[in-house]
Amino acid sequence: MENILRINLSAEGGPKTSLEPIGKYAGLGGRGLTSCIVADEVDPLCAPLGAANKLVFAPGLLSATPATTSSRLSVGCKSPLTGGIKESNAGGQPATVLAKLNYAAIILEGRTPGTDLWKIIIGADGVSFEKCNELRGLGNYDTVAKLVEQHGEENAFMTIGQAGEMKLGAASIACTDRELRPTRHLGRGGVGAVMGSKNIKAFVLKEKDARYAKAKDPVKFKAASLAFAEGLKRHAVTGQGLPAYGTNVLTNVLNEAGAYPTNNFHTGQFAGASKISGETLAALETERGGEATHGCQKGCVIQCSGIFHDKDGKYLTKQPEYETVWAHGGNCGIDDLDAIALLDRMDDDFGLDTIETGVTIGVAMEAGLIKFGDAQGAIRLVKEIGAGTPLGKILGSGAGVTGKVFGVERVPVVKNQALPAYDPRGVQGIGVTYATTTQGADHTAGYAIATNILKVGGFVDPLGTAGQVELSRNLQIATAAVDSTGLCLFIAFPILDQPDTFQSLLDLLNSFYGLNLTGDDVTALGKKVLKAERDFNTRAGFGPAQDRLPEFFQKEKLAPHNVTFNVTNEDLDTVFNF
Amino acid sequence: MENILRINLSAEGGPKTSLEPIGKYAGLGGRGLTSCIVADEVDPLCAPLGAANKLVFAPGLLSATPATTSSRLSVGCKSPLTGGIKESNAGGQPATVLAKLNYAAIILEGRTPGTDLWKIIIGADGVSFEKCNELRGLGNYDTVAKLVEQHGEENAFMTIGQAGEMKLGAASIACTDRELRPTRHLGRGGVGAVMGSKNIKAFVLKEKDARYAKAKDPVKFKAASLAFAEGLKRHAVTGQGLPAYGTNVLTNVLNEAGAYPTNNFHTGQFAGASKISGETLAALETERGGEATHGCQKGCVIQCSGIFHDKDGKYLTKQPEYETVWAHGGNCGIDDLDAIALLDRMDDDFGLDTIETGVTIGVAMEAGLIKFGDAQGAIRLVKEIGAGTPLGKILGSGAGVTGKVFGVERVPVVKNQALPAYDPRGVQGIGVTYATTTQGADHTAGYAIATNILKVGGFVDPLGTAGQVELSRNLQIATAAVDSTGLCLFIAFPILDQPDTFQSLLDLLNSFYGLNLTGDDVTALGKKVLKAERDFNTRAGFGPAQDRLPEFFQKEKLAPHNVTFNVTNEDLDTVFNF
Repeated sequence: MENILRINLSAEGGPKTSLEPIGKYAGLGGRGLTSCIVADEVDPLCAPLGAANKLVFAPGLLSATPATTSSRLSVGCKSPLTGGIKESNAGGQPATVLAKLNYAAIILEGRTPGTDLWKIIIGADGVSFEKCNELRGLGNYDTVAKLVEQHGEENAFMTIGQAGEMKLGAASIACTDRELRPTRHLGRGGVGAVMGSKNIKAFVLKEKDARYAKAKDPVKFKAASLAFAEGLKRHAVTGQGLPAYGTNVLTNVLNEAGAYPTNNFHTGQFAGASKISGETLAALETERGGEATHGCQKGCVIQCSGIFHDKDGKYLTKQPEYETVWAHGGNCGIDDLDAIALLDRMDDDFGLDTIETGVTIGVAMEAGLIKFGDAQGAIRLVKEIGAGTPLGKILGSGAGVTGKVFGVERVPVVKNQALPAYDPRGVQGIGVTYATTTQGADHTAGYAIATNILKVGGFVDPLGTAGQVELSRNLQIATAAVDSTGLCLFIAFPILDQPDTFQSLLDLLNSFYGLNLTGDDVTALGKKVLKAERDFNTRAGFGPAQDRLPEFFQKEKLAPHNVTFNVTNEDLDTVFNF
Repeated sequence: MENILRINLSAEGGPKTSLEPIGKYAGLGGRGLTSCIVADEVDPLCAPLGAANKLVFAPGLLSATPATTSSRLSVGCKSPLTGGIKESNAGGQPATVLAKLNYAAIILEGRTPGTDLWKIIIGADGVSFEKCNELRGLGNYDTVAKLVEQHGEENAFMTIGQAGEMKLGAASIACTDRELRPTRHLGRGGVGAVMGSKNIKAFVLKEKDARYAKAKDPVKFKAASLAFAEGLKRHAVTGQGLPAYGTNVLTNVLNEAGAYPTNNFHTGQFAGASKISGETLAALETERGGEATHGCQKGCVIQCSGIFHDKDGKYLTKQPEYETVWAHGGNCGIDDLDAIALLDRMDDDFGLDTIETGVTIGVAMEAGLIKFGDAQGAIRLVKEIGAGTPLGKILGSGAGVTGKVFGVERVPVVKNQALPAYDPRGVQGIGVTYATTTQGADHTAGYAIATNILKVGGFVDPLGTAGQVELSRNLQIATAAVDSTGLCLFIAFPILDQPDTFQSLLDLLNSFYGLNLTGDDVTALGKKVLKAERDFNTRAGFGPAQDRLPEFFQKEKLAPHNVTFNVTNEDLDTVFNF
């Protein structure tokens, strides 16, 4: 991964590529690389859907290796949803292919003139561009099917659906999984709209003749790789909970904790939780001939994914994630797994962030468009997004816009991005992350649930305010570093609890790159990434007032604990004091 | 005007009123009073459509007097459109009645529980509240007609139409004129949505037994009043141009200057300008039996308003203002005065800011919904707003939301409020005002056109950058003071050019209140108001990045002068250095 591929879509005579050495960005990958490039090259005040915005893809530091869970892909840009910097990441196969092609990053800049749609084909034999107007208006499933017809199966694909073509704020970029299905999404912040604004419908990433990179010390790397995988299998979360029930193992946990946002954050417990829990979902998947334990990328030992079949035993969608089951389920008062799975399928097909979309439906319910619990109504509304009706375009623009258009007061967004599946009143630490992360409300940016609820890496009382800022700060720093490695964030559970597994992670990096990184270096990396992001956001106009939760979290008490969000503004403003 | 009437809509058992002496706010009126109260009492981070926002109405310092043009009414709140402080003002009769009832301000706070619509009746005999669900869904014309039936003609009315009930970002509050028509609008910033969010459909302001206040020195006041009116009549703008052709006298002027934004700010001159100019409009009005010279309030000597009849000689709407003729006309490539007048009527009836609505239609044209120049298409789109269809709710939410929903890059807004009828590339001074005013893009906040184009108060080259910051700064300060007096902003032309008329203004204030104000005191008042507003905005999260024009004004050259907006960010950031 020594090269940065720059693609200038505005070049005269058609898109032009150039290759640059990684240079000053050496040592950065994934989020670290996308964020530093965006911070360096993108005008924070540019129109996010204009030619001046850039879309930067980067595999992680370990994506060019067979290390387990190392194929997370990051994408960065100025977000059309938040107006700030955005890093969104996904699993699936694209990161591995890009890394094996020796690309540390791809910088997509400018915009093709005219209205033609294009696909970009990247392989060991070079880069080419083809018009692909035949794909216009297709969902991700049909798009990938056509691309497989045209280019074969030895590829990974990144595509946008109708939402990206329409440049909607909730639009994602789909990454194909091991089965060549568009189920792993660069979901948050409207990155699909930026790709659509540049008239790019698809990337074809050719795996043919792409080779894993050689470690500087192959023997040590192999040992570290084995030890690291063993560490993941040993920890209860990554070795048992996630493989058995997927991320949706959290439904019962959060519901019992009274921090499961129900009916657009009106209460903290959902009567229908057991009907949509990970346990119920896994049993249903198995019963119908799907899979309850499955990996989204080759070589993953966690296997938190799954395959969901419909009532007729036919593939419908990958196992809906906890966040999706919550957003389309409990958050909307819906306890019907088939409806939720269909919504997941539709989101993946149209190319929509499931969190943003589910929260938006909740806001539409708050506005009275349909009632809480109306599963068929929710399906009808999401269909409108795919169809591109005016109502669909409102909803596809996300919860913030939907709240504005329908005059809703209670809109759960920070920096205009929808809150995920943990009520910040019931888990105050995650509230600190939502409020202060550079990304807009984002649980993955500093997953305080780990320590507040799962008691990983210690314990901080979720309902108290003590220690929450420090917890969120440390997690945000660690996450920015992990997001740079290409490793799945779920490795955070074992590395927080098991010092030897953390050492294995350092060994992986050191033996592959010939370095001598210590834990302090990892922390320094995380801080560097966060500072670059926050500096971009400051220049984009974000200050303390943007680091706040919506008013109602401070005013409305959440049942059953009857708590408001109590971390003070003064404390929130110290998160980035490092 | 010694009392502040506070109305708590959330009180148990129904709305409660209390009376407070003006106290620390003595010496403030209009914008000065609304802005200082909002800055003191409203949480800058509150949800604008929630119970915590307040809606503050205030007549001007001279509104309780028969001084000419003194009946401007200000309304203040946290704007649901901009997220910052808002002061919007209008002519018509309400300010006079409120002032004659001795109210310096009305503070509307809280929100009635439930979904009933209410009207608030204020008179010399007290304040009362009545449910008025029979008015639900009515436009302003029908609403006022019903209110006249119920309460008689000896009233002024403030009402919201469908847009306010729907809590749309472009929703205005209509004030009735001398003919009891809802044609004078507190237009900008979504103030109608805030009134709608509090479930208030109408104010009935009873003039019966309301008396002008007595001046401290009646003899001097009368003399000052006569001298002031004479000064207005003597100046070419207020004595000739505005009476003869209304504000629309500017169409030919701006078009000739090459600063008339055409087709969503794509060019600076409109081929159809002469068909919609003030000269053409006045001739058409006279020909059809309307009026080309008319006052929006009693006692005004400028008489810049008019009455527009349709082809059958029947009243259709008041004379559309320059901003309206531009927003719905040249900005959309439409050169049909009948279509523009119908759009003006619809905006007044639905309760929509004509600037925001016209610019939004231009953005919809840019998005391809209809073509530039399609008058019938524009009418169809505005009808959708009144009907409350999803498309209508998008458009009614303003240009910023419409741009987001339809993925448009070129969206002419600052702080999410639509730019008025002067291209900031062709008149760089107004660009400084658009960028930096506390209000979001607003020409009235510091009308640099006066000096850049009309050569009032000196001359600053509109295409250069020299002197623009100082010009805008001084005008913003002066405007904040004038907006506090209740006097129409058009008095700025004579007071800038005629020292004796400025002295008459001071004499009016001094003889009425028994003061000894000098020009410096007026400047100090303006600075105080601006500082309160800017402090609110800072706390609401606005910083230098929000004091910027959209990117395309710096990048796209405007024909015919082929200029971009060239005032530097560093210079913009000095506007508030006073």
